[in-house]
Amino acid sequence: MELSEETVVWRTRVRYAETDQMGVVHHANYPIWFEASRSEFCRKRGIDYGQIERDGMLLPVLELRVRYLQPAHYEDEVEVHTRVIEIRRSLLRIQYEVRLNETKLAEGETLQMLVSKATFKPVRFPPEIAALFLKTSEG
Amino acid sequence: MELSEETVVWRTRVRYAETDQMGVVHHANYPIWFEASRSEFCRKRGIDYGQIERDGMLLPVLELRVRYLQPAHYEDEVEVHTRVIEIRRSLLRIQYEVRLNETKLAEGETLQMLVSKATFKPVRFPPEIAALFLKTSEG
Amino acid sequence: MELSEETVVWRTRVRYAETDQMGVVHHANYPIWFEASRSEFCRKRGIDYGQIERDGMLLPVLELRVRYLQPAHYEDEVEVHTRVIEIRRSLLRIQYEVRLNETKLAEGETLQMLVSKATFKPVRFPPEIAALFLKTSEG
Amino acid sequence: MELSEETVVWRTRVRYAETDQMGVVHHANYPIWFEASRSEFCRKRGIDYGQIERDGMLLPVLELRVRYLQPAHYEDEVEVHTRVIEIRRSLLRIQYEVRLNETKLAEGETLQMLVSKATFKPVRFPPEIAALFLKTSEG
Repeated sequence: MELSEETVVWRTRVRYAETDQMGVVHHANYPIWFEASRSEFCRKRGIDYGQIERDGMLLPVLELRVRYLQPAHYEDEVEVHTRVIEIRRSLLRIQYEVRLNETKLAEGETLQMLVSKATFKPVRFPPEIAALFLKTSEG
Repeated sequence: MELSEETVVWRTRVRYAETDQMGVVHHANYPIWFEASRSEFCRKRGIDYGQIERDGMLLPVLELRVRYLQPAHYEDEVEVHTRVIEIRRSLLRIQYEVRLNETKLAEGETLQMLVSKATFKPVRFPPEIAALFLKTSEG
Repeated sequence: MELSEETVVWRTRVRYAETDQMGVVHHANYPIWFEASRSEFCRKRGIDYGQIERDGMLLPVLELRVRYLQPAHYEDEVEVHTRVIEIRRSLLRIQYEVRLNETKLAEGETLQMLVSKATFKPVRFPPEIAALFLKTSEG
Repeated sequence: MELSEETVVWRTRVRYAETDQMGVVHHANYPIWFEASRSEFCRKRGIDYGQIERDGMLLPVLELRVRYLQPAHYEDEVEVHTRVIEIRRSLLRIQYEVRLNETKLAEGETLQMLVSKATFKPVRFPPEIAALFLKTSEG
């Protein structure tokens, strides 16, 4: 399967509540930003995640990795660049980059699994949803 | 109805993530502590809030008030003292005090309403649950 | 002192992490939204809150009130309308309304005090900052 | 250097605010639990992290990894088992296991760097602090 090179960008301004007493953004906020950027990715691609849940499925995170390179500060307007790197059976792997202007602040990856809400057992991605995660701009 | 004078005490040690760049606990954590103390209150009184939800009801917060008197700091071992001050039809009013040793750090109040999960319409408290919220130690 | 009628509007899309198992936004997120909207208010009025902190002052919240009217849900694009209703000596009182389209979801108020970072003692608002909080569009 | 096999255990009861609309604990809470368990580790070993900060140093997280195996639920009383696996120059590597009774819910790892508060440049761990992170029960 040919994967899209395209990223979707989500922007946020750092909230005061996201800082800690180090004077920088607390590291546990990055997975929350990744998730918000992932939601934006879905919206941009026409994937209705809310509907996936209403259809009895969930997409929990199985694995999370973050590398923190530079701190983010209150009021910084950061960008999270998100791209799907793999979708296979019930698994979805996504990469993220957090940037402030041209500086990379952090990078990360999540592995998610589509599961049944009732049983938490894996469910294969419906082909039409897999296609939306993967489609290129030409597509 | 005669209300209990008794409070239930819940203890927590301030987490680093709960601080902000002022170097103190961010004020939005207090309602979370109130809620955790309320959960402890229910457990101590034999009220199974999880079961209330499984029975198709929810207990959302309608009103919240907090007065912040003194800041809390990383690693402080704070106490939240919780007592029910009113339960009537579908409404539950609870008061909280956050203390560090003998110092009062904050006080607050919540008003909650028992509602149907399906409709978000008010539901009267079942008398046996109301009695558990109100029971005194002698009771 | 004549107060501005004007509000500043801050928009956010509800993050998945902001929901709880009731399926709606957890109530402790509203004070975080109020704060983000307050930051936007400051930016729009030319008040540099970061600079206030670097100048050795802080603006902690002394009182918080929230009334929750309707729940907010994942992906809702909510607005927080913010207006200053009082600034006097070291005290700043602000009101908030959370709206989804034309529906009011919640309303709230904060009372803050300008204090010295070193001592947590009250400091009078410098007149030029007070003026920025209060200025009207005509001003 | 010989490393301790010993783990320190920190316990918490899942807060309602930690759940999300999947009905389980949101994955971004695990790094917060890791951190709280790390704080407990320090306390148990006689390492005063607050003092390290007051001495002009910080210990930010450079890398975070989490593997989620089973979901945690509201009111679960979970344990986080924490052990240092490496301390070298300015780097500290710690592993975590989240357990509910005998079931492993998640595992993770953090890499932290001791840095100067003023410059964010790396600082070697003072030998007496390194020794406390590493000491065995026999030691």
